[in-house]
Amino acid sequence: MSPTPVTYTLPTMPASYAWEATDEEVAARYGAPIDRIVRFDLNSSPTPPALAQRVLSAGRFQTNLSDYPPGDYGRLTRAAADTYGVSIDELVVGAGADEILELCAKAFLPPNGVAIVPTPTYAMYRVVTEQRPARLIAVDRRPAAEGWGFDTRAIRDAVRAHAAANPLLWLCDPNNPTGTQEPAGAIASLLDDLAADADADDRQPPMVVLDNAYAEFAGPPLQDLRHGYSNLVVVRTASKAYALAGMRVGFAIATPGTTRRLARYRPPGSISTVSATVVTEAILDPTEMRANVARLTAERPRLAAALADAGWRPGPSVTNFVLLDFGSADRAAAVAEALLRRGLVPRTFGAGHPLAGHLRVTVRSAEEDDRLIEAAREIEHGRPIEEATA
Amino acid sequence: MSPTPVTYTLPTMPASYAWEATDEEVAARYGAPIDRIVRFDLNSSPTPPALAQRVLSAGRFQTNLSDYPPGDYGRLTRAAADTYGVSIDELVVGAGADEILELCAKAFLPPNGVAIVPTPTYAMYRVVTEQRPARLIAVDRRPAAEGWGFDTRAIRDAVRAHAAANPLLWLCDPNNPTGTQEPAGAIASLLDDLAADADADDRQPPMVVLDNAYAEFAGPPLQDLRHGYSNLVVVRTASKAYALAGMRVGFAIATPGTTRRLARYRPPGSISTVSATVVTEAILDPTEMRANVARLTAERPRLAAALADAGWRPGPSVTNFVLLDFGSADRAAAVAEALLRRGLVPRTFGAGHPLAGHLRVTVRSAEEDDRLIEAAREIEHGRPIEEATA
Repeated sequence: MSPTPVTYTLPTMPASYAWEATDEEVAARYGAPIDRIVRFDLNSSPTPPALAQRVLSAGRFQTNLSDYPPGDYGRLTRAAADTYGVSIDELVVGAGADEILELCAKAFLPPNGVAIVPTPTYAMYRVVTEQRPARLIAVDRRPAAEGWGFDTRAIRDAVRAHAAANPLLWLCDPNNPTGTQEPAGAIASLLDDLAADADADDRQPPMVVLDNAYAEFAGPPLQDLRHGYSNLVVVRTASKAYALAGMRVGFAIATPGTTRRLARYRPPGSISTVSATVVTEAILDPTEMRANVARLTAERPRLAAALADAGWRPGPSVTNFVLLDFGSADRAAAVAEALLRRGLVPRTFGAGHPLAGHLRVTVRSAEEDDRLIEAAREIEHGRPIEEATA
Repeated sequence: MSPTPVTYTLPTMPASYAWEATDEEVAARYGAPIDRIVRFDLNSSPTPPALAQRVLSAGRFQTNLSDYPPGDYGRLTRAAADTYGVSIDELVVGAGADEILELCAKAFLPPNGVAIVPTPTYAMYRVVTEQRPARLIAVDRRPAAEGWGFDTRAIRDAVRAHAAANPLLWLCDPNNPTGTQEPAGAIASLLDDLAADADADDRQPPMVVLDNAYAEFAGPPLQDLRHGYSNLVVVRTASKAYALAGMRVGFAIATPGTTRRLARYRPPGSISTVSATVVTEAILDPTEMRANVARLTAERPRLAAALADAGWRPGPSVTNFVLLDFGSADRAAAVAEALLRRGLVPRTFGAGHPLAGHLRVTVRSAEEDDRLIEAAREIEHGRPIEEATA
């Protein structure tokens, strides 16, 4: 039933974020004109809300740009708390969800401690863990055929095996890069099981960071779980459904006692005054966010069906991206090369990664997606890959 | 000669940044109208460059705001490297100088390690040290009468006493909050002494982080020192002379081998796309920065002289702020209260701080400074403090 958790040895140097090639680098390497490059690799939205440029042009910010941002980010915090249906002492702001993960590591993962993560998942949990420095214990998710679900038994066993280290548990739901989601009630059940195990062993349950970045695409949001679990931090972001990844704003939601522990590590001014203002306005008026979600949610099955028609194998998704299974690392690498030569940037997984035979692509605008669909048809049925050029 | 370094016990919880009261909090507490509040407490410039709003209104950013910022911040890095006269592999960007300090702690200060800092100085060195967690050893600077200079002997003794821990040394020059600067050649001499001590003991010299945030006001900038000292990181910022504190952009400059160690810890996207673009344009066209520095450098002696005429005791300054000596903590606190009731926010130092009898005030616009001067005259010669209201 329960696979042995895979333990990665802590390397001499901690993991660092593997930089995505920039547009300029892709253009230089593959010869695609820079204005023809489309990022299918970062799960961002195709266009920002029109509201963003209106706010920038109006130039009315809470404080002068020569002054430091307000230390409490009060307007942003109040707007986000209203949006997520929590009180202001249940919310902490950060420079993107990535900074929230960093604050969680500082508050809940002591140096030389242990964190547990079901994989495959978002790469940043490993980076913030190893940079603490701490040791990451990876627990396999169930296979694709079982929807990449949490292996609850394996997670509980890993937590129990490392109970002496008071481990931190990183969860991502909906999960990146699989695009899948736990069934209703599954996360509450897991949290209950973890609490029961802790109770039986007369110890505290582990702190759980639940990255809910894609909540708006999949629903329902998971922050209401905080009521039952003071060991839970739910992570939200302005980067995905709000289409404001360039502004770098994210949020942590937890009970007041838990946010107090997090807030102690929040830097006084990591979010620019401009970003705070733009995101405040965007979450106060979610009209464009909802339209973006509706459009991408409708576009996703069209893109997936067309890619399947072309002969590719998209997995099911509740998010704004699709995981494609190419069966082998070589084939996935060859397809990635053919896409890059067309200026279309997929997310690749390094050799040795459990998803090395896959590529992940973001759902973008119909026009951009059509370029991806056309490329898939050419790659599968047209000219041979080695001759394909943009 | 050499005072015993003061060792602060690591508290149960690490130091957290003491949030400045926001404009709203000052208004609520002291009854001053919010649009009459002036921040004399944060050493920021009175107005941002006009260029900032032009860039925001034009809306032409390197990448779409719905996408993530370019992972290498290439344009910003190239512009900053040109400005500071270094190569691009000698520079690392961060979300304000504060994030640069954080990266230095991660790269050079192991958990449970030791950092040494000459005090009084900027409070953030303690925060990033204790949050690592690591222990901060404070070494007294020379007294005000000796210009608050480094006590080189005490610094060398502290480094030697903690050599086994391979300590990190935080230096600030020009120094905040004293406004003073080491004499020409003094920092190179200190670095030479530290290297000689290390050589004599057959160990590596300590890593030295030299915060040069106020360089443009005082000159000459210190990044050229990197050539002789691969253990040196020089910190620069867009927050002070460039008058863009609200954008949150700072820089580390060091030899390529040292920046490689730092860059490993740089988050992939802590600077917003908007901030990267505005600061790039500001450093490519430093006209407004130079005018700001010229204006504040001329305004500083006017402000200091007028405050002295009113009966206050401003210390000498090479920066955009002035340290005022009120002789006792009670008197400084009473003056701070009287200023806050007028909506003028000074920097205070907590009870027990070596500067508890002082206030620090930022040089701002002539009109804003006139309000401070008028307040000083009223407080010293007019109505009693307890009756003074705006």
